[in-house]
Amino acid sequence: MAILFVSDIDDPVAWRRELEKRLGPLDFRVWPEIGDAAEIDVALVWRPPRGLLASLPNLRAILALSAGIETLLEDRSLPDVPLCRMVDESLVVTMREFVLAAVLLYHRDLDRYEAQQRRAVWHMRPPRPASATRVGVMGLGALGRPVAEALRDFGFTVRGWSRTPKEIEGVACFAGRGALAAFAGGCDVLVNLLPLTPETEGILNAGLFAALPRGAVVINVGRGRHLVDADLIEAVDSGHLRGALLDVFREEPLPEDHPFWRRPNIRITPHVAAYTLPESAAEVVAENLRRLSAGRPLLHVVDRMRGY
Amino acid sequence: MAILFVSDIDDPVAWRRELEKRLGPLDFRVWPEIGDAAEIDVALVWRPPRGLLASLPNLRAILALSAGIETLLEDRSLPDVPLCRMVDESLVVTMREFVLAAVLLYHRDLDRYEAQQRRAVWHMRPPRPASATRVGVMGLGALGRPVAEALRDFGFTVRGWSRTPKEIEGVACFAGRGALAAFAGGCDVLVNLLPLTPETEGILNAGLFAALPRGAVVINVGRGRHLVDADLIEAVDSGHLRGALLDVFREEPLPEDHPFWRRPNIRITPHVAAYTLPESAAEVVAENLRRLSAGRPLLHVVDRMRGY
Repeated sequence: MAILFVSDIDDPVAWRRELEKRLGPLDFRVWPEIGDAAEIDVALVWRPPRGLLASLPNLRAILALSAGIETLLEDRSLPDVPLCRMVDESLVVTMREFVLAAVLLYHRDLDRYEAQQRRAVWHMRPPRPASATRVGVMGLGALGRPVAEALRDFGFTVRGWSRTPKEIEGVACFAGRGALAAFAGGCDVLVNLLPLTPETEGILNAGLFAALPRGAVVINVGRGRHLVDADLIEAVDSGHLRGALLDVFREEPLPEDHPFWRRPNIRITPHVAAYTLPESAAEVVAENLRRLSAGRPLLHVVDRMRGY
Repeated sequence: MAILFVSDIDDPVAWRRELEKRLGPLDFRVWPEIGDAAEIDVALVWRPPRGLLASLPNLRAILALSAGIETLLEDRSLPDVPLCRMVDESLVVTMREFVLAAVLLYHRDLDRYEAQQRRAVWHMRPPRPASATRVGVMGLGALGRPVAEALRDFGFTVRGWSRTPKEIEGVACFAGRGALAAFAGGCDVLVNLLPLTPETEGILNAGLFAALPRGAVVINVGRGRHLVDADLIEAVDSGHLRGALLDVFREEPLPEDHPFWRRPNIRITPHVAAYTLPESAAEVVAENLRRLSAGRPLLHVVDRMRGY
């Protein structure tokens, strides 16, 4: 079985090492050193060039290195073979940690003290208990649910919103478009972890921001296209929103001339909230390779109609 | 029993309400409306004016609103009555939360991304597992121990240093001056939670910074006089230290012309890491008032020789 590895940001040496630990020696090819395309059985990919996967005549499966696979689905030539998203504990762990870091930053007013420091202003803001900060999580799936649970366990008052009804102990769950404004009305901090689908594109827009309480914060760790950039800038500039932390963007890297870079209340991180560590994530890939060899159903196959 | 309340930062209305909930109506006087000084039995204080307590001829106990009481001990005229420090869960909870927020900020490179943002630079730094960040906690007492435990539970690699030997499961504990450099050598992030005593004053100095690995971060949530300001500036400016987060200062408010304000790698918060919430902290004060009435020993009495 030949595997083609395609990624600008993941380390092929570490991936090969971790997979071979579990499966023994592999025919592991790293794009663009593809060899005979007809020999490739499986592609292990993060944002492969459009059309590349269609050029592999005997491809049997596509294994994504990321949880979000909307960029893959945009490739109209994508072969009709099972497409599996990455579901790995390291993605959950790194995302949970990042969101907690971001929520704590705002909960403990570190953004405000930073603004005060620029003017050498000493002004104490008495800390409030975590329960006084209401955090809303949009998307309650493989990442959103453990994030909501971790925030709840830390003591924050947590609510969640998803397309279909969910139940999470100690988290007030809202479902469907009709409940979105009611959900938003109780979010001091809004965390977006939705999958990107035609339904959710642009969901972080002026209407949603208006439904948030004055002084709320938006944390986007979903996808750039969930957000209507101009609407966020207006909501921040008008003072309705206290600020935003954005990890994902419509165009990445974020273009140098994008106005987000220069907004003091918008904090930018370069798509680093969640990360797939090969040390743990190789396990699910190895299991799918075993299943493929044995002709058994793969894990975490994407429903292409649903988009995730 | 008459109580005198003295504080610039705590709310006398909330304190009276919470104490009366537990003890019934009180003769509760708020400085400077002191009435007949001879009637005052107990002083509940945060940084009272020097000499004030000595002017109360029948004072029987001093109850501090803070965990640190070194400012009180500097008052040579301090009456020789039991002096109790504040030990309350809200101080622990708020301190634990603040230190976790600070450590996560550096662990997830939010300081570096902020610096990148000023230059519109998009540069990903792959997240490392929490266990790859080594956090050292100086002071393993009523605040330091739960902070070290929380960092350990979060997955960080934690070590601790204290004057006398301590044992904490999963935390490498060092004790005494002789072990300080060895302790510091394994700290990517150093958190100071020592009490301020003649022995610990100035302990955060050039010698200690030199023992830290290059690129380490210093978080001072102890007292301003633990730190030699000029040594920190030099260690940060030389690039040996990545940065510092300071919540406490030799002079508070930090003077407008202090160089700390303008160092991009020094982050300033205005003494807000730990905070005594009357909703919970009134309980230990009420208990000490009950004990005082009944002639029983008070809780959390300071050893004035030891300084805490």
